[in-house]
Amino acid sequence: MTAVRRSGRLLDGREIHYYGRDPLPSAGLPAADVGPWNPHRSELRWDPLAEEWVITAPHRRRRVAADGDAGCPLCPSRENAATEIPAAWYEVAVFENRFPALYGAWRGSPARSGSVLRTVEASGRCEVISYSSDHDTTPAQLPTDRLATVIGALADRTTELGSLDGVRYVFCFENHGAEIGATLSHPHGQIYAYPFVPPRIARMQAAARRASARGTGCLFCGVHREEAAGPRVVERGAHWTAFVPHAARWPYEVHVYPKRHVPDLAALDPAEREELAHVYSSVLRRLAGLEGGPLPYMALWIQAPVAEDRELFHLHLQVFTDRTGTGATKRLAAGELGAGAFVSEADPERVAAELRAVRP
Amino acid sequence: MTAVRRSGRLLDGREIHYYGRDPLPSAGLPAADVGPWNPHRSELRWDPLAEEWVITAPHRRRRVAADGDAGCPLCPSRENAATEIPAAWYEVAVFENRFPALYGAWRGSPARSGSVLRTVEASGRCEVISYSSDHDTTPAQLPTDRLATVIGALADRTTELGSLDGVRYVFCFENHGAEIGATLSHPHGQIYAYPFVPPRIARMQAAARRASARGTGCLFCGVHREEAAGPRVVERGAHWTAFVPHAARWPYEVHVYPKRHVPDLAALDPAEREELAHVYSSVLRRLAGLEGGPLPYMALWIQAPVAEDRELFHLHLQVFTDRTGTGATKRLAAGELGAGAFVSEADPERVAAELRAVRP
Repeated sequence: MTAVRRSGRLLDGREIHYYGRDPLPSAGLPAADVGPWNPHRSELRWDPLAEEWVITAPHRRRRVAADGDAGCPLCPSRENAATEIPAAWYEVAVFENRFPALYGAWRGSPARSGSVLRTVEASGRCEVISYSSDHDTTPAQLPTDRLATVIGALADRTTELGSLDGVRYVFCFENHGAEIGATLSHPHGQIYAYPFVPPRIARMQAAARRASARGTGCLFCGVHREEAAGPRVVERGAHWTAFVPHAARWPYEVHVYPKRHVPDLAALDPAEREELAHVYSSVLRRLAGLEGGPLPYMALWIQAPVAEDRELFHLHLQVFTDRTGTGATKRLAAGELGAGAFVSEADPERVAAELRAVRP
Repeated sequence: MTAVRRSGRLLDGREIHYYGRDPLPSAGLPAADVGPWNPHRSELRWDPLAEEWVITAPHRRRRVAADGDAGCPLCPSRENAATEIPAAWYEVAVFENRFPALYGAWRGSPARSGSVLRTVEASGRCEVISYSSDHDTTPAQLPTDRLATVIGALADRTTELGSLDGVRYVFCFENHGAEIGATLSHPHGQIYAYPFVPPRIARMQAAARRASARGTGCLFCGVHREEAAGPRVVERGAHWTAFVPHAARWPYEVHVYPKRHVPDLAALDPAEREELAHVYSSVLRRLAGLEGGPLPYMALWIQAPVAEDRELFHLHLQVFTDRTGTGATKRLAAGELGAGAFVSEADPERVAAELRAVRP
């Protein structure tokens, strides 16, 4: 990684960080004035039946939903066409989300009331990471050295946001494609710094704890060992293995595991990071190269919590799409959303063979 | 309940049960021959990170996706227009799903292998419940005595399917509206008899156990007590309370709780059952009467597991929609699907006021 970082502020006071090779952009162009930034705090409401926090954020209804070329908040400024970003060009830029679901400083745990219906003030932070100043490209089309810069930036954000008071989990992800709900088509990801360990991560944490208590070692290492020797491998590197998971929930789903037991992106060594950029790119290009493709997808970086059970966690990437590749969509129905039991119509071994056959 | 039941078989051997007042339909008309019924068994694949079973059912891709009037498998037969149902009319009919996600007799727990990636043969049963022989009505438009018959049929199916070997949970639900993924527009629900307690139910079970161990009594009774005295009540009966839950996940979400601590539909007394039909109908009509018109929705009957922790569970109905009522849809993104943390843009107290203002 030869990428460096330069930090500044948008006109409304939000932080912005540029990542890439020198020379980095310096603020020089006029930036669009979108008015003062007055982010609301959300509420965390406790669901006592699911034992999960729900983030209640009615103020988010106002957020930018417009897509297209005009007014894209991730595009750089041009002469006579100022955007929020006061630079004409950048490689990777990270800035605070203007309509954050999580915002504000941690003010300590409130006293427990006698109620089962607890509400607390949310804290935390939401950032947007733009992968390119080019609006019309996609993550799958970017060169792998750019994806390496993205990965480096995510590692840096994970460390920095993890050091904020009250942040318990940093979640880096990508919602790609309007069909899957992304409100912006500019190639980008997001970073959420949660004041709690999110439910799905907490379940992995509990499972890893139980495996450790059983004396069977790292649960994730066990999964990697079996998958790497099995029929669902899509790509095999010196440091990483990409595979369709045994119990895939989605029509196309690929997990990418490092061989070495590492808690998060920041803990990768340079060789691991470089190969990860290649495998990540290759997985995205395989999904984009399917018959009927490119597909919308979600990409999730599963990392260790900030401070708990770090030695039990094992970094990995999960990528999936709800499209079948033949024009159909997997709809989540009451079985999934109500009972939590997924019914998958995909055949994981066949899906792995299909993905292997795509020339990335 | 004066409803009675008559049982028979479809031409391909699947069970059918009619529920309603005497006289019940008797098989008399010729039925359409859709060929032999050879349902496949699904696999249960264990996800060791989530500690959940995923039902893998590639054979389900073949199922009937066609909607519309022609060939609806829930319509009764007419002279010169035979359907699968050999009756010209019925009130409520339940029959086995032709493309079941869960099928077959329980053959006992397989021996544990050393693998973390376990696969077992699925068992269980999937049934379809038609609420009317009229294709062109909706559950919200049905008279409440018909909904009482539906509730009685669900109670009967819960008891009967719960008595099958290996069935651990009976889940009754409704996916209403093509926009939400329902493949048939005929008013209907479904019943899944699972060979495991589904994940979301298992989490409620664990929460109820913990509350009981803390000595705070029934968790659900505690929720009901607070909600019934709070600002989110939508409807209040002698036996039931309908409310928008404190930590609602969806744009419109209503839970309906009985005051009495009962494990499932079969345990309701006649007065409770009759009032439930009224409240259920009223909730559906309030959702259908919102500005912006009838919304697609899911309805879930949360009941106790067949044999475990029955004394800890508390029957209730959950109804929700992913539509905001102003044309927008709540999309589940990586925060929800990846991290499991819901961000809701609805304001539960305002939603309750809005639903109260609808004349049902």
